[in-house]
Amino acid sequence: MSEQEWLRTAIGASTPDTITIRGRDLANDLMGKVSFTELAFLLAAGRIPSTGEARLFDAVLVALADHGLTPTVLAARLTYTGAPEAIQGAIAAGLLGGGTVFLGVVEDTARFLHSILERLGEAPSEDGLQAAAEEAVREARAAGRRIPGLGHPIHKVEDPRTPRLYTLAAETGLLGPHLGLLRHVAEAHRARSAKALPINGAGVAGAALADLGFPPPLLRGFALLARTAGLVGHLAEEMADPIGLRLYQEVDRRAVYTAEPPGIDRD
Amino acid sequence: MSEQEWLRTAIGASTPDTITIRGRDLANDLMGKVSFTELAFLLAAGRIPSTGEARLFDAVLVALADHGLTPTVLAARLTYTGAPEAIQGAIAAGLLGGGTVFLGVVEDTARFLHSILERLGEAPSEDGLQAAAEEAVREARAAGRRIPGLGHPIHKVEDPRTPRLYTLAAETGLLGPHLGLLRHVAEAHRARSAKALPINGAGVAGAALADLGFPPPLLRGFALLARTAGLVGHLAEEMADPIGLRLYQEVDRRAVYTAEPPGIDRD
Amino acid sequence: MSEQEWLRTAIGASTPDTITIRGRDLANDLMGKVSFTELAFLLAAGRIPSTGEARLFDAVLVALADHGLTPTVLAARLTYTGAPEAIQGAIAAGLLGGGTVFLGVVEDTARFLHSILERLGEAPSEDGLQAAAEEAVREARAAGRRIPGLGHPIHKVEDPRTPRLYTLAAETGLLGPHLGLLRHVAEAHRARSAKALPINGAGVAGAALADLGFPPPLLRGFALLARTAGLVGHLAEEMADPIGLRLYQEVDRRAVYTAEPPGIDRD
Amino acid sequence: MSEQEWLRTAIGASTPDTITIRGRDLANDLMGKVSFTELAFLLAAGRIPSTGEARLFDAVLVALADHGLTPTVLAARLTYTGAPEAIQGAIAAGLLGGGTVFLGVVEDTARFLHSILERLGEAPSEDGLQAAAEEAVREARAAGRRIPGLGHPIHKVEDPRTPRLYTLAAETGLLGPHLGLLRHVAEAHRARSAKALPINGAGVAGAALADLGFPPPLLRGFALLARTAGLVGHLAEEMADPIGLRLYQEVDRRAVYTAEPPGIDRD
Repeated sequence: MSEQEWLRTAIGASTPDTITIRGRDLANDLMGKVSFTELAFLLAAGRIPSTGEARLFDAVLVALADHGLTPTVLAARLTYTGAPEAIQGAIAAGLLGGGTVFLGVVEDTARFLHSILERLGEAPSEDGLQAAAEEAVREARAAGRRIPGLGHPIHKVEDPRTPRLYTLAAETGLLGPHLGLLRHVAEAHRARSAKALPINGAGVAGAALADLGFPPPLLRGFALLARTAGLVGHLAEEMADPIGLRLYQEVDRRAVYTAEPPGIDRD
Repeated sequence: MSEQEWLRTAIGASTPDTITIRGRDLANDLMGKVSFTELAFLLAAGRIPSTGEARLFDAVLVALADHGLTPTVLAARLTYTGAPEAIQGAIAAGLLGGGTVFLGVVEDTARFLHSILERLGEAPSEDGLQAAAEEAVREARAAGRRIPGLGHPIHKVEDPRTPRLYTLAAETGLLGPHLGLLRHVAEAHRARSAKALPINGAGVAGAALADLGFPPPLLRGFALLARTAGLVGHLAEEMADPIGLRLYQEVDRRAVYTAEPPGIDRD
Repeated sequence: MSEQEWLRTAIGASTPDTITIRGRDLANDLMGKVSFTELAFLLAAGRIPSTGEARLFDAVLVALADHGLTPTVLAARLTYTGAPEAIQGAIAAGLLGGGTVFLGVVEDTARFLHSILERLGEAPSEDGLQAAAEEAVREARAAGRRIPGLGHPIHKVEDPRTPRLYTLAAETGLLGPHLGLLRHVAEAHRARSAKALPINGAGVAGAALADLGFPPPLLRGFALLARTAGLVGHLAEEMADPIGLRLYQEVDRRAVYTAEPPGIDRD
Repeated sequence: MSEQEWLRTAIGASTPDTITIRGRDLANDLMGKVSFTELAFLLAAGRIPSTGEARLFDAVLVALADHGLTPTVLAARLTYTGAPEAIQGAIAAGLLGGGTVFLGVVEDTARFLHSILERLGEAPSEDGLQAAAEEAVREARAAGRRIPGLGHPIHKVEDPRTPRLYTLAAETGLLGPHLGLLRHVAEAHRARSAKALPINGAGVAGAALADLGFPPPLLRGFALLARTAGLVGHLAEEMADPIGLRLYQEVDRRAVYTAEPPGIDRD
């Protein structure tokens, strides 16, 4: 394989006079002309989004940026306590908790919906979506599997981000098959369960990103991008009002040490 | 100190029905109404930016998002090779190289300008800026210190981001004392040096962020936010066209092993 | 739940006069009396290992510490290039590639063997292990699944770590059911395949750690501990002889930029 | 520059039949023959330590491995809460707080001592060390600088690790100039201060590592290696007894939200 074949990129390049991103001149065609949201879309998709796509993508990023003093935010603020000179470490620590339990839902929901839609073929009808949703819920319940995107520990009746994102998707003409199917999945689940579970914000975000055309394995990346803005906000606050050190001191004061005295260890 | 005094945040909170960010209702007042850029500004500054501020802030984030296959991008793509199931690790690895050598320039330039401006008092005149710039350059040269924000290994004559950001700052009425002083610093340096050094993109970004009112220790955080968008783009490409593994294979094939045979090690 | 019930740890604690780890006095009972390897065992298992266990555990950590210029090592060295003042970031970046593709094999092999052994009950006979191995290989092949712990891209005939670790396990009397079963699995695979695959170093390490009594989900942690020593070695070299920057410069020089000129983007 | 000149390493390499570390055959010359501690020394220093060096190095790693529920440990456990499938992320998060505030003391103390010793030349006398210590303390106090390695928030009178490490250094014949000078520095500080500050464990560890011949910029790497063993221990406990989630729930329950209602934001 020649070099040309293996060491190539279409993302960015520079010469002494220019910087190019996805084939566009950064200074003249992007700075001052596209928003950061549009640039993030361009970087990942290779094209600049339509006005409607940018509006929906913005709403998804806004929806996922912060959810208060979460475990990942606490990890970032505690890391800042030990290494305030290396803010990149605190942000990285805050992102590293973005795994299957929290941000993974964005991706898992999209994967779940995507796998159902693949079987339906292009442009499925509402009836087709409804039947597929009922079948998928039946299967998941029979196998004892949770359905990704449903339920939230705090927002037990309704996640406020969900109806808002459906409204915005409808307004921009981007309420596609993933969002449509997810609504049927929630309804099918409700019809079969004692306890109705709302569509959560991460789930609806995943469906919207999939309808915007992004592949499921990439979606967690956008959730992490959104969270980075939240982490910068929390670190701005931490610089002025340090929770990290005080939280540690409180833990240190209250923690109970339970180690038992050792018996004979050695052979 | 009571709990109320120490475990407090003004960033985000949620109830069963609502999510609040910086005192605003996320679903009703932010989603669909502010851009992600405006939200990032709100999260860090506690207020929504003016239209001009958002435009300049957008341009700064766009300017810093990507610069091709940099060491940090390569680190992210190589990390993805080993842990494709945990994209948060690849993004974190890509951010961790954002230290003093690369992204630190954003912060260092702002600190340098800030320390000069503190001595000048409020609303310094152009003449005052010029005199202070000359004095600071003289001091730095006498002490053999590099002046942060000047010079770039690739953009040796002009960094294309610099004039563009000055134009946008002027258009939005936000060409403040940090940006103004930086221009005088570059001129003062040119007058005293055999080799003119251009203002680099990281430096002008740092000055613009400082003029937007952000404290220097936070600025690297915005550079990292911008880079996260670039990293998501590179990882989207890596999923389809894996440079990481091929780069490793090339290194493995070409690396020369130079260890000498051991003598007698042990006592 | 009272505080005492939830905020508790048996790992470490300190008073003004003492530091305690797993119930032992650090200064008087551990420093100078146990090796770092024994301490790592104590920290994870809650007891000090026997001499034989320490010897086998040492050999596992030694086996996994380094494998040359791997993708994770390159990520660490490239991260150091950008942030030499924050060596913790370079080490973290080097660990973050320790996912399913590379170090995950340690854990996956142990999980695979563990799930077979659970069905066999305590103290399985050699014949029982052999039959179970044949059954497991048959199932895996029928389902088209790879068997974890077999095969290596470089060590195609034999991984030199494997026979050595089996010898050490036998010498220390610690060749337990996981190691025993893994050997039968490799034989059963060889009997059914055109191409014999050797037991790889990560796989044998995982089996040995499981025989030492550690739970599979923790095993990747020991592989990461071992790799940390390798990363410190590579960073010691990087400080004197920087590969990171030169590798980037080579990539920058050779990379081909493939972005196509944009068509009309906007609506 | 030819390839041979730039893409070279003396750390590790492999062929189909062998793995080599620092020029030694891994399977035959290292596994079962050197401890993990000796291997870590070899990786960084390029030579196998003497028995005494290994004993002192072991004691340093043992001393630094754990200090209870520190901010970095809490960050790791909170990260595990969100991403239990990617333990490498939890360990990385736990290392990222190893910056200037905590583990940096190891490095800072060694740098401080090293810079004094450089001025003294080889083999300084006890009187020379004492005079240099007094001078350095005088300078530091005149400049209002803290002296690295002195004082500890918990161990206010004596850090139990300190006398133990001095004893072990003396027993192994490795009480070199850094350790010697540090003792004089503490005495000189005590003679001039109302409040005596003990030599802390990180400081004495830094001095001991410097006497073992390691360069100051590398020392934090060993502290991070030691902490990795502590983190694996804490994650073993977290798997069985999850503090992370419960700590988050407690924070969530008790946190006070202080954001003020917004005024008019927009222009």
